[in-house]
Amino acid sequence: MKRVLVAIGVLAVFGARPASAQSADDCVPSALNIPEAKYPCLYADHRALFRVVAPDAQKVRLRMGPGFDMTKGPDGIWSVTTTPLVAGFHYYSLQIDGAVIADPSTHTYFGSGWQNSAIEVPAPDARFYEHQDVPHGRVSQQWYYSKVTAKWRRAFVYTPPDYDAAKKSYPVVYLLHGWGEDETGWYRQGHVDDILDNLIAAKKATPMIVVMDNLNAVKPGESAALFAARGLVPPPSDTPPAPPSRGAPPAPGGRGAGPGAAGRGPGGPLGRPTYTEMMFTDLVPMIERTYRVRPGKDNRAMAGLSMGGAQTFATTLVNLDKFAYIAGFSGNCGGFGRGNDAPDMKTICGGAFAEPSTFNSKVKLLFLGIGQAEGPGTKNFSEALQKAGVHNVYFESPETAHEWLTWRRAFNEFAPRLFK
Amino acid sequence: MKRVLVAIGVLAVFGARPASAQSADDCVPSALNIPEAKYPCLYADHRALFRVVAPDAQKVRLRMGPGFDMTKGPDGIWSVTTTPLVAGFHYYSLQIDGAVIADPSTHTYFGSGWQNSAIEVPAPDARFYEHQDVPHGRVSQQWYYSKVTAKWRRAFVYTPPDYDAAKKSYPVVYLLHGWGEDETGWYRQGHVDDILDNLIAAKKATPMIVVMDNLNAVKPGESAALFAARGLVPPPSDTPPAPPSRGAPPAPGGRGAGPGAAGRGPGGPLGRPTYTEMMFTDLVPMIERTYRVRPGKDNRAMAGLSMGGAQTFATTLVNLDKFAYIAGFSGNCGGFGRGNDAPDMKTICGGAFAEPSTFNSKVKLLFLGIGQAEGPGTKNFSEALQKAGVHNVYFESPETAHEWLTWRRAFNEFAPRLFK
Repeated sequence: MKRVLVAIGVLAVFGARPASAQSADDCVPSALNIPEAKYPCLYADHRALFRVVAPDAQKVRLRMGPGFDMTKGPDGIWSVTTTPLVAGFHYYSLQIDGAVIADPSTHTYFGSGWQNSAIEVPAPDARFYEHQDVPHGRVSQQWYYSKVTAKWRRAFVYTPPDYDAAKKSYPVVYLLHGWGEDETGWYRQGHVDDILDNLIAAKKATPMIVVMDNLNAVKPGESAALFAARGLVPPPSDTPPAPPSRGAPPAPGGRGAGPGAAGRGPGGPLGRPTYTEMMFTDLVPMIERTYRVRPGKDNRAMAGLSMGGAQTFATTLVNLDKFAYIAGFSGNCGGFGRGNDAPDMKTICGGAFAEPSTFNSKVKLLFLGIGQAEGPGTKNFSEALQKAGVHNVYFESPETAHEWLTWRRAFNEFAPRLFK
Repeated sequence: MKRVLVAIGVLAVFGARPASAQSADDCVPSALNIPEAKYPCLYADHRALFRVVAPDAQKVRLRMGPGFDMTKGPDGIWSVTTTPLVAGFHYYSLQIDGAVIADPSTHTYFGSGWQNSAIEVPAPDARFYEHQDVPHGRVSQQWYYSKVTAKWRRAFVYTPPDYDAAKKSYPVVYLLHGWGEDETGWYRQGHVDDILDNLIAAKKATPMIVVMDNLNAVKPGESAALFAARGLVPPPSDTPPAPPSRGAPPAPGGRGAGPGAAGRGPGGPLGRPTYTEMMFTDLVPMIERTYRVRPGKDNRAMAGLSMGGAQTFATTLVNLDKFAYIAGFSGNCGGFGRGNDAPDMKTICGGAFAEPSTFNSKVKLLFLGIGQAEGPGTKNFSEALQKAGVHNVYFESPETAHEWLTWRRAFNEFAPRLFK
């Protein structure tokens, strides 16, 4: 497969924005706010105004990127207006006299292992992930019992608009979230249903089923340890705990907030074997039993973001007889972007790329997506693969960091290349 | 229809509980906590231990029923152990130096107009709403465009376990949440999918479709005003705002926390005509076009809790040609339980009960559910209807207040009586 550098026509839209003073009336509530909540809101230049009622607090801080101290008004309400924010979906939290909490004015989104608040800064290319007047598929909650983990698990499954009427079978994408997120991430933060509805309506993508699972899978007795980096409240003890370190959100205005091209968290660069075992023992058979699924590797893709990208590589590279389409969005294998940009192409990623012609004959698409602000690791990986003869597609999301707009765009570029 | 007082065998289980000291090791994390969060946790006697990190705060309070002041430990963590809590799902919030916020240790649930934290106190009869090893139906997100409100709306739709395989048609229940809640309430807080899966597996209920819609429907220009009682952050001004008044949760150990038998909030005892118009113009046609629905009033039920109960009466009583099954759970019409316990049965509820034999011939089931701690309004209503000759079924949930365990139990008693 020929390597293609995908350019999307939005760079010109990000330009110098007017920094003139604007009245609070010009501040538009974020789309993620609870009903009737005016704050946080966004000015046309993407500065955001945050407000929170905390009449007796001594110190209130907005935890977003480098952080912003809020100031108290005469009404006991704390406010801050940020510098212009990069477009996209940003997790954030507030710190009130040392307590790290979600802003009560927004809906909450599971990320960094807890229910964060979030703000949505409209992207210039937002239409591709917006709910439009096209036929809509359906996202369904799908419970299944896992013999491997000895627990009930929940996935969400997207079925395309014609699923009920057409009575035909469909190819399937298995799609994983990132560290500290869960099976709700791709349809809530990611808008995967709207992206596919829009692509299918425009005849740019083949109708497909998308399975959004939870990558946290441990056997009885195995340590989960997936949320170790987050500040859970410890049990009573005489030992002072470490300060809370809830997920640091993106740098406002900013670059370089992402942790680079590789998946974060434990599990190592090749992810967790338990997830792979669970997937083939429990998840895939349940999906193929429950939905009208077209069989065989040419009708099966796997993709994931960040830690879910690392898991995707771990699962697929040792199962190339089962997947013809593979994607990592801000997450892959081999250590690129983590201080290891010139590894031995014969041995990295479990030796999957040691024989490029074999790999190319088995894999119809290897897709690597990244945010422009995440650093050159993924681009270097793509180029090293290309140089070694391994076909791949590289996609870079303009301006964005290790965030959901990167992954929405990456999926929007990945999906049209599937099952053709 | 004969009036039946449904007794469920749980009263004996609520008894004197040992008040002896217990170690923190005996405290079991609430089922609603985020992964790995140990707090809040529950002792066997249903006292709950809450903990929150707020090292620099001056005053931290648990907002649940009468409220509990928390105390600061040497590690900067605030704690409190409550008195024994009534079984069920309880919304709660924390107040940290005046800021009313969700506890970062729990998943959040939309209630009182924002994303609350919540704790689940296991009920003695919990098995009926637990996820068991039975065939499972599916809850799907269903978008639809409303011509009446000129907006996209979202419902959740439960389809029974045999929906895909059986290729037959099903009767439908339209089911509404309460004030300050939304279309996610019945499957997240209410476990309606598990309740029906369990009833269907036990052959106690006919397989049916359940449509969980959002009762907030306003035309362009119409005021929503549904969340007026909640403490939204006001815009900048010189006027000090009223103190926040986020949803007061249940009285711990306690009784009488509920606002009585009637639906709260604006819209009056007969609900909002816009919802009814939207339902018949947009929702019902979309459901009957999209799912395999058995036609006619004998295959259509409507039910709701609290304000959704009031809306159910408002919608159905003037459309008795469209619904053969009607239920209000802690919400009805006529003003019972709100200082009006002896109204004129000929004129209340829009005169729907003026001719009992006509009503009885049209309605196969009128079901009135309530929590024991909510006061006698609904029981008085049921008895007054019975005395006037209007057949109805009365159900009282032992010990519970204006809360989700009341409504889970009420639905569990209602569903087996449908479509027979």
